[in-house]
Amino acid sequence: MLKIGLLGAGRIGRVHAVNIAGHAATTLAAVSDVNEEAAQSLAAAYGARALGTDAILADASIDAVLIATSTDTHSDLIEKATAAGKAVLCEKPVDLSLERAKACLAKTADSGKPVMIGFNRRFDPNFAAVRAALSAGDIGKAELLSITSFDPAPPPVSYIKVSGGLFRDMMIHDFDMANFMMGGAPASIHAVGTSIVDPAIGAAGDVDTAVVTLTYTDGRIAVIKNSRRAVYGYDQRLELLGSEGLLSAANILENTVSKATKAGVTSAKPEFFFLERYMRAYAIEWDAFVSSIVNGTPLPVSLEDGIAALALAEAATQSAKSGQPVKLAL
Amino acid sequence: MLKIGLLGAGRIGRVHAVNIAGHAATTLAAVSDVNEEAAQSLAAAYGARALGTDAILADASIDAVLIATSTDTHSDLIEKATAAGKAVLCEKPVDLSLERAKACLAKTADSGKPVMIGFNRRFDPNFAAVRAALSAGDIGKAELLSITSFDPAPPPVSYIKVSGGLFRDMMIHDFDMANFMMGGAPASIHAVGTSIVDPAIGAAGDVDTAVVTLTYTDGRIAVIKNSRRAVYGYDQRLELLGSEGLLSAANILENTVSKATKAGVTSAKPEFFFLERYMRAYAIEWDAFVSSIVNGTPLPVSLEDGIAALALAEAATQSAKSGQPVKLAL
Amino acid sequence: MLKIGLLGAGRIGRVHAVNIAGHAATTLAAVSDVNEEAAQSLAAAYGARALGTDAILADASIDAVLIATSTDTHSDLIEKATAAGKAVLCEKPVDLSLERAKACLAKTADSGKPVMIGFNRRFDPNFAAVRAALSAGDIGKAELLSITSFDPAPPPVSYIKVSGGLFRDMMIHDFDMANFMMGGAPASIHAVGTSIVDPAIGAAGDVDTAVVTLTYTDGRIAVIKNSRRAVYGYDQRLELLGSEGLLSAANILENTVSKATKAGVTSAKPEFFFLERYMRAYAIEWDAFVSSIVNGTPLPVSLEDGIAALALAEAATQSAKSGQPVKLAL
Amino acid sequence: MLKIGLLGAGRIGRVHAVNIAGHAATTLAAVSDVNEEAAQSLAAAYGARALGTDAILADASIDAVLIATSTDTHSDLIEKATAAGKAVLCEKPVDLSLERAKACLAKTADSGKPVMIGFNRRFDPNFAAVRAALSAGDIGKAELLSITSFDPAPPPVSYIKVSGGLFRDMMIHDFDMANFMMGGAPASIHAVGTSIVDPAIGAAGDVDTAVVTLTYTDGRIAVIKNSRRAVYGYDQRLELLGSEGLLSAANILENTVSKATKAGVTSAKPEFFFLERYMRAYAIEWDAFVSSIVNGTPLPVSLEDGIAALALAEAATQSAKSGQPVKLAL
Repeated sequence: MLKIGLLGAGRIGRVHAVNIAGHAATTLAAVSDVNEEAAQSLAAAYGARALGTDAILADASIDAVLIATSTDTHSDLIEKATAAGKAVLCEKPVDLSLERAKACLAKTADSGKPVMIGFNRRFDPNFAAVRAALSAGDIGKAELLSITSFDPAPPPVSYIKVSGGLFRDMMIHDFDMANFMMGGAPASIHAVGTSIVDPAIGAAGDVDTAVVTLTYTDGRIAVIKNSRRAVYGYDQRLELLGSEGLLSAANILENTVSKATKAGVTSAKPEFFFLERYMRAYAIEWDAFVSSIVNGTPLPVSLEDGIAALALAEAATQSAKSGQPVKLAL
Repeated sequence: MLKIGLLGAGRIGRVHAVNIAGHAATTLAAVSDVNEEAAQSLAAAYGARALGTDAILADASIDAVLIATSTDTHSDLIEKATAAGKAVLCEKPVDLSLERAKACLAKTADSGKPVMIGFNRRFDPNFAAVRAALSAGDIGKAELLSITSFDPAPPPVSYIKVSGGLFRDMMIHDFDMANFMMGGAPASIHAVGTSIVDPAIGAAGDVDTAVVTLTYTDGRIAVIKNSRRAVYGYDQRLELLGSEGLLSAANILENTVSKATKAGVTSAKPEFFFLERYMRAYAIEWDAFVSSIVNGTPLPVSLEDGIAALALAEAATQSAKSGQPVKLAL
Repeated sequence: MLKIGLLGAGRIGRVHAVNIAGHAATTLAAVSDVNEEAAQSLAAAYGARALGTDAILADASIDAVLIATSTDTHSDLIEKATAAGKAVLCEKPVDLSLERAKACLAKTADSGKPVMIGFNRRFDPNFAAVRAALSAGDIGKAELLSITSFDPAPPPVSYIKVSGGLFRDMMIHDFDMANFMMGGAPASIHAVGTSIVDPAIGAAGDVDTAVVTLTYTDGRIAVIKNSRRAVYGYDQRLELLGSEGLLSAANILENTVSKATKAGVTSAKPEFFFLERYMRAYAIEWDAFVSSIVNGTPLPVSLEDGIAALALAEAATQSAKSGQPVKLAL
Repeated sequence: MLKIGLLGAGRIGRVHAVNIAGHAATTLAAVSDVNEEAAQSLAAAYGARALGTDAILADASIDAVLIATSTDTHSDLIEKATAAGKAVLCEKPVDLSLERAKACLAKTADSGKPVMIGFNRRFDPNFAAVRAALSAGDIGKAELLSITSFDPAPPPVSYIKVSGGLFRDMMIHDFDMANFMMGGAPASIHAVGTSIVDPAIGAAGDVDTAVVTLTYTDGRIAVIKNSRRAVYGYDQRLELLGSEGLLSAANILENTVSKATKAGVTSAKPEFFFLERYMRAYAIEWDAFVSSIVNGTPLPVSLEDGIAALALAEAATQSAKSGQPVKLAL
């Protein structure tokens, strides 16, 4: 039984707590949060201890930590936790600064402890099934990838300002998905972005709607579409055209009911947001992390993967500003 | 080029006129109707002659007739036309009286002329694909057939009164479909019916909603559901469960557009009624008739098929009245 | 925190254990099973005690029991548990004998303790949404209900022999669903059944494929289709035609991925069987039971509902044998 | 009755012949083709005359011509036909040279005769329904348009060499669709292209897979994906995200049948190619042209529209070569 320390008791921390407590091989040992009450309340619900972060890292009985704190603390905590001998699962992104993330990687490598970045969508059964079908040769050789990823509503502008921008905060998931599906990084990137949803987002120096085109050395192309607002719900789809067919992952709908009347046929919307849509993905992600730790096998998503996605986010930010494509170091 | 006489210039007659005129091997030579103006107007549009029915039958240059007159004239016209040496395609049903229809068959058999009954749904590309997949062994051995057949709105009660009732007028299509899919007639039939849509239909001695169960000597079962009113459009579906799978034919929708908003996802309704839904089926039906006549091959739907469906309609009418199942002569 | 005793540690008992342990207001206190090892193993996983059934019922600290034992013990255990002052959630069916179930109801009524029967499908979010939409008037007045309920594969004949037959064992869920959707019991029932899937099932005196027609005093009709074998998975669908539209609940599929190749477009099958399909329904069912107990509100499914479904199963069994419809006492 | 001269008796000419002959207000008077036999054979089937192109243009009884010849003759024939007083419907593209097309526009304007360019997809009932829903305000203000347009198989390289390239030959349809949906031209364009499907296409100086991003002065974005090879059929879809929802037009499938087996659920592929998919669109297009001519109302697609799409194709060709975005004159 692995003892787990959870750093961060906010919305995403609570999702992870359910999975940690429910997993046959892990137990939630301790919880920390800058809001002590939040830590205590969450700890109580699972019979865990509420401790300070340093106390958790100092506790030799704790095998691994899950970092679900604010982004600006991620690289520091990864470094401290690995130095303290803990295995780490850290929420994305590694950092808003690519340089800082690379430094974190260097330090962590010295520790020899495994660090996984929480790109939960790789564990979504639908996207995973697309990847598996591609690997099985179901559509021949991949040629053209298309990712649609729309949030239901934009976050407050106060959040936008500290988010690192759409490409680092939101599209980073899709950059990782592209790397996951294509099996590596692109050779060039071109981004266009606009603040058509909310001019206040533009005033804050960010975009809310964007299209990014990635090209690969072997001629493959990927295109990613993001919008901060799809009023009908969280729109998470993917299509991959190959030499022998097309793989598509559609949305998960709220239910399977349809109603036919004179006005047309109405069916359910996509699940509202990431907690609903990726509920199963988070549980599978946790199981994958635990399996790797227990069996000593490679992590399914590495810190390097986190950095690769961040590098694309940085280049996309640059391209959207300059209007020019950016060549990427391979 | 076969010269065709069209008997009946009403709604369904006009549908057939398009196909007769548009077919590479047939030409619309003459049209008759009790309403002379209707015959003249339709004939004019296609460069055909408007004639009396007797004149058409007496015209030796006319090779075949399509009977699209009122039901009460069908068996008389089939007899007269075959006696006059014409090949015949007659709209369903053969007659409202099973006895009369059988007499018609006997007379017609003497003539040696081919008579096809217009069960257009056999030629619907979707239902035909189900039948072909069954024949190809795609779902193993058939076990349980389910037919859903709803009209968009009930006809006027004045029509109901002369229609022969729901089982002879409406479900007769589904009886033929069951015979087509199952490759023969059932051993017993049980029907329930109600006039829940419109009590005036009940007052006229008919039902507007009905469920019929058919059993076959080898253990197969079929169930047919009819309603005179599906406000969302003409609902024409079929499912066939077999030992190795399920075949389903869904509705044809008005278009492929969907709209996702906060209120849900809205898509198009089924095509409104039989003229829209079965437009292609009528063209394929006509081509099948012409091919049989030209090549001297067996007709895809025979007068016997019309009588088999009528026998089921008669038994269903009886079962719905008595509340008891009816055993069928095989 | 309600302390729960779980009677029965088999497949369905283990499903309930997850929900009991995971619910914020309940804790799994004790487990019993005729197989002591099974009880011990399940109890250990949740920090519960493995006890004998009598010991659980005698334990005053236990508030409620969940009965997940074999059917032949249900009515005895309901009586004992309510006599011991426990609230009860019992798996369906109440009993294979309608008479015995009625006796159980009489005894239980004396105890004043709440007894809920586990018709889990009422809590499926899809079927529940259909019921809610009907209540909201979305399709006007209900007219024609159609339930499709196919298992993926037949159980062993040894099970069939003690199951009480398809109508009591399998279709009882659909009878309850019809009662749930229609808001009460039908006036007459007609059943046909066949052992076309496996003659050995017929030799054991049972059927594996059946169609049942229910009629209601106000003219509504319901039809239920059952098969013990749909090789593509657990097929659980429902359609309700009303005066102003149609409500449909489709299957939950294994995933949302489709693959388009020269061979066609392939998508996922329905979830394999009831544990997969109704995973969420069991959790919602448990929450509904707990809420009623905690708040003292009426149970969403009563022992009377269990008896009403059993009465239909008994009548269907009789109709399938005699070939005649059966009138039902209202 | 308008008398129509058809210039070009190839594949697309024959599609138009059906519609010209079948339309209530037009008659196919004459057919010309560089292949005289083709002209004669097509003319014979409709009772038309086979003439030389000059003879058709010189025939004062002919009201309008449909130009379905090879692309390199389009602008010459438009000029000659309008000079001869004919109304014109010309297949796309106007010309491979934007300069030449503009000259054609100038000359034609002098004639005062109406010229329509055959962007058939505007008349597809699905895309037209999306446009109508947008105009009706169904999704608020448009923000992000996405067009997927894949051919089933690449044409021979010999065709590629004279086609003007993917952007002028294939994506020109999608440029017009973007202009149609967005109600005007974009401000900038960025294109990437690759010959991943067939290196021989690359060797011929063209691409077979491309992604184009369009930006608009008000912040809207459009993205177009093209591939010369989708082995599962002609993939023609469109999505439009707006401030209040998403409109999607899906493919038209070969039939509505699905088959569920142990291997999954298989349904039909998209209609194979443009003749199947856009059969109805061509008929509606013809009717729209005729209505405008007869009623003297503005044409639904003008020669200017043809030039606007060509301008985008030229800019895309340039962007794909340079790797840089191209600013467009508005």
